[in-house]
Amino acid sequence: MLENLMKYRIILASNSPRRRKLLEELGLKVEIKPVETDETYPASISPPEVATFLARRKADAYNGLEESDLLITADTIVAMGTTILGKPGTREEAVNMLRLLSENLHHVTTGVCLRSMKKEVVFEVTTRVYFTALAGNEIDYYVDHYRPYDKAGSYGIQEWIGYIGVDRIDGSFYNVMGLPVNRLYRELKNF
Amino acid sequence: MLENLMKYRIILASNSPRRRKLLEELGLKVEIKPVETDETYPASISPPEVATFLARRKADAYNGLEESDLLITADTIVAMGTTILGKPGTREEAVNMLRLLSENLHHVTTGVCLRSMKKEVVFEVTTRVYFTALAGNEIDYYVDHYRPYDKAGSYGIQEWIGYIGVDRIDGSFYNVMGLPVNRLYRELKNF
Repeated sequence: MLENLMKYRIILASNSPRRRKLLEELGLKVEIKPVETDETYPASISPPEVATFLARRKADAYNGLEESDLLITADTIVAMGTTILGKPGTREEAVNMLRLLSENLHHVTTGVCLRSMKKEVVFEVTTRVYFTALAGNEIDYYVDHYRPYDKAGSYGIQEWIGYIGVDRIDGSFYNVMGLPVNRLYRELKNF
Repeated sequence: MLENLMKYRIILASNSPRRRKLLEELGLKVEIKPVETDETYPASISPPEVATFLARRKADAYNGLEESDLLITADTIVAMGTTILGKPGTREEAVNMLRLLSENLHHVTTGVCLRSMKKEVVFEVTTRVYFTALAGNEIDYYVDHYRPYDKAGSYGIQEWIGYIGVDRIDGSFYNVMGLPVNRLYRELKNF
């Protein structure tokens, strides 16, 4: 499958082991070349726009794209209404974010940029995620045992808190993990 | 967490490595003791009722429940409308089921039975699953490489076909894998 990509060297400009694994499950061999970028964004744009803005910015930060390269970058944004929940800086921030998510709906958007020397495709996919009520000791247990300081919104859906806390999603599950693999597969098929 | 279960020996009467893994992710230590049962059911009952009917039948087939045992059994049913899609017996059946799922909505229900000598709790959870259009060569590739003959509905959502084919679910993801872990956690907390 995806024979049309055989001519490309596929580069994933991301440090995320989850994204790498998701791409490999699609049957792709990828080279990992993380980029350093400033992750600020204009205050005026909506959370889904932030996801594509940052995915594109990561592609812009990649140097040395060659003729046969296909570059993949992505950014995942967790938002409640118009408020974006970033990576928690402290234990207190992590606990507060999880309190906010408890018994609430939030949105997870992943923006993706596919770029070669001749072409660029940018898209984003949003999943609605519903948390049931989280008890104080469940939040404490998760933060102390899983240390979600590298995770936007302070949680990983594939970790314990996702098992006990998320009772329903509406949309793509893998999108919440970091890549909307179904849409991505179709975009890659047509690239 | 789930300290209330400390007094129990938890027995999972299932051969499914996925169910075992899902329970372990909840932090439970389980003993695996599969049972042999007749998986027929009355023609008059609905797909969700079949799931709980078979979960209870598996519990009934378990011999030697002791004072400190908590037995967990489950059955997952894949249905399109009122038609239940079982495990495919042949390659042709597998291909036909996937053709049916392609570009369609179906329902996955897992019935769960929790039983001790003093108490029984039975419940079921349903997830709506949407497949995008699957090409003939994608179906062939999946059936030949993944051989889904042990899977109701001929697919595993955590396998390649789930990545490329399922673009949306409405409900619990882990329920489609074999156990509704969020609901299960809450039922176990109150057991």
